[in-house]
Amino acid sequence: MIETIIFDGRDFSRSIDKQTRIDIHRFMSIQGREPKLLIIDPTDSEEAQIYGRSKIRKANLLGIKVFPFKLSNEEKGKNPMETIETILSEIEPDGVIIERPYPYWLDSLYLENILPTYLDIEGITIKSQGRNMIGYPYIIPATAEAALRIILSLGDDHRKKVCIINRTTIIGRPLAISLLNRDFTVTVCHSKTRDLKSITRESDIIVTATGKPGFIDSTYIGEGAILIDVGITEKDGKIMGDVNLDSVKGKASFLTPVPGGVGPVTTSVLMSNLMKATMDRIEERLNF
Amino acid sequence: MIETIIFDGRDFSRSIDKQTRIDIHRFMSIQGREPKLLIIDPTDSEEAQIYGRSKIRKANLLGIKVFPFKLSNEEKGKNPMETIETILSEIEPDGVIIERPYPYWLDSLYLENILPTYLDIEGITIKSQGRNMIGYPYIIPATAEAALRIILSLGDDHRKKVCIINRTTIIGRPLAISLLNRDFTVTVCHSKTRDLKSITRESDIIVTATGKPGFIDSTYIGEGAILIDVGITEKDGKIMGDVNLDSVKGKASFLTPVPGGVGPVTTSVLMSNLMKATMDRIEERLNF
Repeated sequence: MIETIIFDGRDFSRSIDKQTRIDIHRFMSIQGREPKLLIIDPTDSEEAQIYGRSKIRKANLLGIKVFPFKLSNEEKGKNPMETIETILSEIEPDGVIIERPYPYWLDSLYLENILPTYLDIEGITIKSQGRNMIGYPYIIPATAEAALRIILSLGDDHRKKVCIINRTTIIGRPLAISLLNRDFTVTVCHSKTRDLKSITRESDIIVTATGKPGFIDSTYIGEGAILIDVGITEKDGKIMGDVNLDSVKGKASFLTPVPGGVGPVTTSVLMSNLMKATMDRIEERLNF
Repeated sequence: MIETIIFDGRDFSRSIDKQTRIDIHRFMSIQGREPKLLIIDPTDSEEAQIYGRSKIRKANLLGIKVFPFKLSNEEKGKNPMETIETILSEIEPDGVIIERPYPYWLDSLYLENILPTYLDIEGITIKSQGRNMIGYPYIIPATAEAALRIILSLGDDHRKKVCIINRTTIIGRPLAISLLNRDFTVTVCHSKTRDLKSITRESDIIVTATGKPGFIDSTYIGEGAILIDVGITEKDGKIMGDVNLDSVKGKASFLTPVPGGVGPVTTSVLMSNLMKATMDRIEERLNF
């Protein structure tokens, strides 16, 4: 039995918020107004609602003005891109979040054509993703960035083997590329992977985002494994992650709990991204 | 001892060239001229010269007019981007290749700002790489595409484990993303990877691009492994790959030799990319 350190996401996020508050203060003294965050919600997903509320709470707390906009199902007949363009020009936000999962009538490929990179605080557009891919990351998707920051905080041995169970464009892919940028050796697994255990057991770090509550138990991990739990599922009114905490305790050396782990860090990273992009734009530091 | 199938890259490339010839024929009947390929060479690398010559040969063979341009070291004082812009507007090519490795005074980040996506037949710009990243690939780097096509030609079991020993933006990364798009489980390794053998031995497919001649011998592979050799090094006047052919014969089930393996396929893929981008542009099939 070894000691399992339980990560404190709320504590970790405080140091990120500290810089964000400084940026907001500077922004207000230059612009004479609060920064504006537009949150477009095209989903019906319960998980998105939970996560969405925490973003609004955090923004309010920091002094960022939130404009929530429900892009409803009735947009099906209309052109949702036109609707988004109209809101953009009406609100003139400093950053935009579009909640996931996207409905079928909202296409990430076309979003790129209307969402300017300097408003893309989620790092989801082709240009943001392409910059990361070629080794010049600017803003990468917030959940990937949160997982990355937590991993980097664990020390400077970057030659560890990481297994990521997720291949999406907002978690697995950008995180894999970001870890490669820093000398980690990375395996990306997913629902079609055969004999997943043979890979996870040999990994120093496991990042899991499957959405299967309690899926990762002690049989999946090696002694001393570091577990980054990005899963978030509501089950019987309880928020649960991918990791079976009781099972891995005493075998894992470190784990991020759900709730209170990666989630709060992600929310703080998003606000940090908003202020980074905004300050770079108004102080003309970056040619977007 | 099992039978090791030696891949024939020249034969494989013929089927790619067949479609390219059809496109060239259609292009000429519409435009009344040959397609124009601009090859900018900023390198002093011997390997680049070898590979460069094979591209010119292939283009000539297919009826593509090549404009080689040596971007010399003297550009150091000047702005190389301006020089490239001038050539682009003088020659008005249908596609552009920029030989690697780039010298320090040529920055891939800034190239994106002047090379339009429809001329980017190497798939190196931020936009091309970003499209692949978000799962809407258009043109991906030719060596990655060549390796991908060879792997896909080996059957429809896409759940194999692939180890890629290369993390560059033109081989390892785009190939990893492309394989993930198709359900493979992918590990990306590199010079900093610890205990590489423990990973390669457990992999069904190994793609190697280290530039260390004969580096991969039988101790690195499991019985029946598929070896895709993307290494290309000149040693004592001989072109050599990463794989020690004599050592792995009888243990690997399939291997691509060097020369005559991935190389000829890559060259054909480049010409195929040129005609794909050109035909999509003149027939207005794609909104670039």
